[in-house]
Amino acid sequence: MTNTQPITLNPAASRDAQLADLLTQIMEIFSVSDAEGPLADETEAFLKRQPHLTVRRHGDTVVASTDFGKASRVILAGHIDTVPVIDNFPPRWLEPGDPLIREDIAEAHPDERVLWGRGATDMKASDAVMLYLAATLDGRTPQTTPKVDLTYVFYDHEEVAAEKNGLRKVVEAHPDWIQGEFAIIGEPTNCGIEGGCNGTIRFDVVTHGVAAHSARAWMGENAIHKAAGILNRLNDYQPATVNVDGLDYREGLNATLISGGKGTNVIPDECRVHVNYRFAPDKSLAEAKALMMGADAGAELGNGEHVATGGVFEGYGIEMKDESPSARPGLAAPLAQDLVRLVRERTGREPLAKLGWTDVARFSQLGIPAVNLGAGDPLLAHKHDEQVPESDLSALADLLLAWLV
Amino acid sequence: MTNTQPITLNPAASRDAQLADLLTQIMEIFSVSDAEGPLADETEAFLKRQPHLTVRRHGDTVVASTDFGKASRVILAGHIDTVPVIDNFPPRWLEPGDPLIREDIAEAHPDERVLWGRGATDMKASDAVMLYLAATLDGRTPQTTPKVDLTYVFYDHEEVAAEKNGLRKVVEAHPDWIQGEFAIIGEPTNCGIEGGCNGTIRFDVVTHGVAAHSARAWMGENAIHKAAGILNRLNDYQPATVNVDGLDYREGLNATLISGGKGTNVIPDECRVHVNYRFAPDKSLAEAKALMMGADAGAELGNGEHVATGGVFEGYGIEMKDESPSARPGLAAPLAQDLVRLVRERTGREPLAKLGWTDVARFSQLGIPAVNLGAGDPLLAHKHDEQVPESDLSALADLLLAWLV
Repeated sequence: MTNTQPITLNPAASRDAQLADLLTQIMEIFSVSDAEGPLADETEAFLKRQPHLTVRRHGDTVVASTDFGKASRVILAGHIDTVPVIDNFPPRWLEPGDPLIREDIAEAHPDERVLWGRGATDMKASDAVMLYLAATLDGRTPQTTPKVDLTYVFYDHEEVAAEKNGLRKVVEAHPDWIQGEFAIIGEPTNCGIEGGCNGTIRFDVVTHGVAAHSARAWMGENAIHKAAGILNRLNDYQPATVNVDGLDYREGLNATLISGGKGTNVIPDECRVHVNYRFAPDKSLAEAKALMMGADAGAELGNGEHVATGGVFEGYGIEMKDESPSARPGLAAPLAQDLVRLVRERTGREPLAKLGWTDVARFSQLGIPAVNLGAGDPLLAHKHDEQVPESDLSALADLLLAWLV
Repeated sequence: MTNTQPITLNPAASRDAQLADLLTQIMEIFSVSDAEGPLADETEAFLKRQPHLTVRRHGDTVVASTDFGKASRVILAGHIDTVPVIDNFPPRWLEPGDPLIREDIAEAHPDERVLWGRGATDMKASDAVMLYLAATLDGRTPQTTPKVDLTYVFYDHEEVAAEKNGLRKVVEAHPDWIQGEFAIIGEPTNCGIEGGCNGTIRFDVVTHGVAAHSARAWMGENAIHKAAGILNRLNDYQPATVNVDGLDYREGLNATLISGGKGTNVIPDECRVHVNYRFAPDKSLAEAKALMMGADAGAELGNGEHVATGGVFEGYGIEMKDESPSARPGLAAPLAQDLVRLVRERTGREPLAKLGWTDVARFSQLGIPAVNLGAGDPLLAHKHDEQVPESDLSALADLLLAWLV
């Protein structure tokens, strides 16, 4: 048993002190992936002490909802696990001038305290702000009543394999818990908006030949030589940049693995080129596949090799290996437009497209537009010297309060 | 200890009976590679009983020489090991009509006994003829005095890795034992001449790139895509057929292996294409390498990657992996011309080029022209139903006696 303290909020303290205190408390509870239990326990207990919240738990994922009878609902989600610690636990507040403060942070935030340690940016700073909002947006006064109902999701196992992901699990087990018109995941973005994401498919493109001894090569058919056509098509392909809802999504088509041959003196009878297509959210999975192999090739995960009937690899063998749909940024809705405008006013930043596949796509698959928006510098995530300046907490809280209330 | 009988020759029997008896005796002595000792022992003892021979042994290789004071010397060589047995040891004489006789052999040799079992064609039939010649060409009468001195080599470990090869070892340890103007290896050729051999070099052609996450492919450089140029050059290459000393050598240039990539979502930073060039004996090793990578690329076995300065793969990285020189057929010398004429008269067959690398190339490297010429069908070598019709022995003996005496 880890001996943890209950998470508390001092009602007499200033807002900034409350935010810093919440962050300190949750960073002091060790929560590397697979060890989220104690932090999930204290998070659940803290939320249950707020009478305006309905709190539910699945595994180490805690879901808390308001029920103010609003027409719309917004989901605020944050993972509570961290990557493994590297001598950066427990956390420490660094006073101005401390040599552990990174130069870039010291320059941007002189005379400011910095919280150093595992999880500072990825993503306990955002978690602390969400806990603050969960406790204080209680519907008791106009200043503490949001324009929308809110669902807070604190989930486990984001930093490891997708099959362990707590958000995925709660969505599958309790889809009714995760409903709303818009979602924010508090991944570090320096309070900018990063929206949607490219989809990705991976498949083998296969050539076949006839084996023979390489001293009698004319008795065989060289499958590796045939793969020249595959690589030539990859080189001829011009990846597009596609604008979706105002964001630019850069596509990519790449061989990531190649293998072929049975021995140094054997004409190879098979060659496999593993191809990864990253496609913009203007395309469905089916559309992306059609562009690669034709609409009716019939290649599906686990059903073996099929001949591409069209697309880039027409005529070659195709074996599907992996697929994940794209997610539109969902910035067209009025709620989202308000957020974009607020972020532009306060930070001068335009929304950016997310390139890799992230948890926002899970919401997108549920039909819930979602973006990443969180405190802290994303470049410090997973770093040994992960740290966040104290004012990042209030910057995020200000932004969300201005949007929500 | 294997309990073997001494090899004997009945002076009262007919020549054909003597040949059949010798083959039976040596096939009854198990001699799969690594177990040649007993057969080497009996071969050595048999040869030592011939007073006109000087017999020497290195490992399980036995070398026996005449010293008739002739101006020229011919080497007759045969390996005594076999590939592993597959229910085809000990050997059996099959009478005409026996269902174990292959149809093709029964058709070509009706009413003839067939010796069935491991080593029948590869190559104890030829070994038996050589033992017969070693015992009977004794220099005592004009009919038993060859026009040349003879050196008989019975060697071990031909059917396994080259580093174990007994012919290679005796050539390295005792170069003075293996001298002559011409050599015949009795590999099965149906008594045809197969001469010289292509050389072979193997090398990796390497491309380099820059690794990156495949969601941000433009941050990297795809080494597999770059390999398109290597495969295109292979496809553009037109392998030649080169006539050397009247024989046609068909060349070949092939990728036999390809590999590249570090993970399904990583832009690959290296791709290796393993290439095998089989070149005709009009080219030295250096000339063959120059055609692939330029004369001054500097790539040698074990010295890592160099840039090809010319040739087919100019501009790519090259790492040498293996090299073996070609061997000219050496059919220009009068001795060889006599043999070619005799084979043509008796079998109607013209000499053929050897395509793979064989032990004749070892003699070629010593400056001794060499060909394969032996009893039995080469297509039956290593087969479960390996067998040889009795008359193949006298056909080979007739041919060699007509040439030598």
